[in-house]
Amino acid sequence: MDIKKYLEEKKWIIDSFLESYFSAPITPGKFRDCMVYSLTARGKRIRPILCLAAYEACGGKADDIVPYSSALEFIHTYSLIHDDLPAMDNDDLRRNKPTSHKVFGEGMAILAGDALLTEAFYVLSNNMPSTFRVPHSALLRVIREVAMAAGAHGMVGGQAQDLLSEGSEADAETLLFIHRHKTAAIITASVRTGGILANGSDDELQRFTRYGENIGLAFQVIDDILDVEGRTALIGKTVGADAKKRKMTYPRLYGIEKSREMAEELIHNAVESLSIFDKKAEPLREIAMYLLKRRS
Amino acid sequence: MDIKKYLEEKKWIIDSFLESYFSAPITPGKFRDCMVYSLTARGKRIRPILCLAAYEACGGKADDIVPYSSALEFIHTYSLIHDDLPAMDNDDLRRNKPTSHKVFGEGMAILAGDALLTEAFYVLSNNMPSTFRVPHSALLRVIREVAMAAGAHGMVGGQAQDLLSEGSEADAETLLFIHRHKTAAIITASVRTGGILANGSDDELQRFTRYGENIGLAFQVIDDILDVEGRTALIGKTVGADAKKRKMTYPRLYGIEKSREMAEELIHNAVESLSIFDKKAEPLREIAMYLLKRRS
Repeated sequence: MDIKKYLEEKKWIIDSFLESYFSAPITPGKFRDCMVYSLTARGKRIRPILCLAAYEACGGKADDIVPYSSALEFIHTYSLIHDDLPAMDNDDLRRNKPTSHKVFGEGMAILAGDALLTEAFYVLSNNMPSTFRVPHSALLRVIREVAMAAGAHGMVGGQAQDLLSEGSEADAETLLFIHRHKTAAIITASVRTGGILANGSDDELQRFTRYGENIGLAFQVIDDILDVEGRTALIGKTVGADAKKRKMTYPRLYGIEKSREMAEELIHNAVESLSIFDKKAEPLREIAMYLLKRRS
Repeated sequence: MDIKKYLEEKKWIIDSFLESYFSAPITPGKFRDCMVYSLTARGKRIRPILCLAAYEACGGKADDIVPYSSALEFIHTYSLIHDDLPAMDNDDLRRNKPTSHKVFGEGMAILAGDALLTEAFYVLSNNMPSTFRVPHSALLRVIREVAMAAGAHGMVGGQAQDLLSEGSEADAETLLFIHRHKTAAIITASVRTGGILANGSDDELQRFTRYGENIGLAFQVIDDILDVEGRTALIGKTVGADAKKRKMTYPRLYGIEKSREMAEELIHNAVESLSIFDKKAEPLREIAMYLLKRRS
């Protein structure tokens, strides 16, 4: 299959949803602009796409759950806005654009993040007007799992550890904790969300967990490598920023070569974990392999 | 009835839930401390109590929905932490204690707020192990309404307008917008949450909406008056802070006397709107009157 075409098509569907989401007027207008600015920045939309691909792997039709999958991008976008703040990673550039607080000020950026996080749960709790109706129990389970993966026991906890670890010596256990929580948890939840919405079996959901944990970790390892190797123009944020802040990274702990080997093994495990699925899971397999090759 | 005793009893129940909520270890420990610090600060717990009282007004037994009602305090607490940040209201004192960012730093404070907001939706999506089971459809509706009231179209939108209006001349329309969104929306949602969980009728829910909007607005008017009149020791934050920042307030726009009259009329309307309820709604009526008399 042509994975690049698949990703482009799905990204287009997600982008359309996100771009039209805040089309009704919101007061104050500047606040709306601030949310839309980050939400419509050129992102890969990898979390919603993973959700759609998992839904398809279980026999679903992706069009049915576009809003639910997009809620994951609301959460991702909020996390980027808050992570970029001066009190956190203090980044001026994101996806080749000035970060939210550079354009709208810190207060607006904090509030835009808060609102996007909140909106994700609004979207997830909303039964859609289309013919397709997800059972209420499945929606509640999705909300529960997404909240768990995004909150103190997941993404935010990982970011807190990351923040507290800055400037200290890297150790492998802490690094693994950070990446598992900060990155892998919400990626795993994204894949599982697709599975839950498609009424996947326990075995299928467990496979998605293993897949998500492996690509989630690989994703972060590759991010770390790109921060060292990449060019600013390509990855759209300041290269070398991690080293400047003495942030713990895989390359810093293991070196580039070993880090790349680890990423390869993680991707291998991810693909392996999908063995029970038929060709409908081909996009999930291809996405894993695609992540390994990405240069931005 | 003895409303002070009622409030104390209910506050005790909510406090117990909140204090035990993060009793299991969370990594990093400093991050857990930061969340617990704000969550267990001496608050009035008025939003959860309103939820419980509305639930009782519709014939429910308050003990059944303590976690759901407490989720509203998670949201309130997160909003206080973020509102106090230097990029927002820049307050050093809250509930007689140094604000979160003064103790734990800005980064931790932002993350603690994020995590508490997220945790609210985790709690609301969780069916309890007790005998009592709220229908899934009611839980989803609660999540939807709470998210709407807390997000861009509610509380956060109000705070955004408040932030953008600082230093400008007060006008009545903007002031009403701010208070309706920043304060009244989530108070209304708190009352309605109790009604929805008790399977209240459409008419009952509409009454709760009117009640909530009126006490919500009154609550803010009284807050503004206390900021001018109160003593720091009593209200637990820096008195006169609003004036110093040239924030729009009711006293600034209408004067103290007229502001007090407005608060009285709002409370009168709130009590009036409960006319269809029997004596089980007495706590809601008494709470409205109690708010008018509060000195802190």
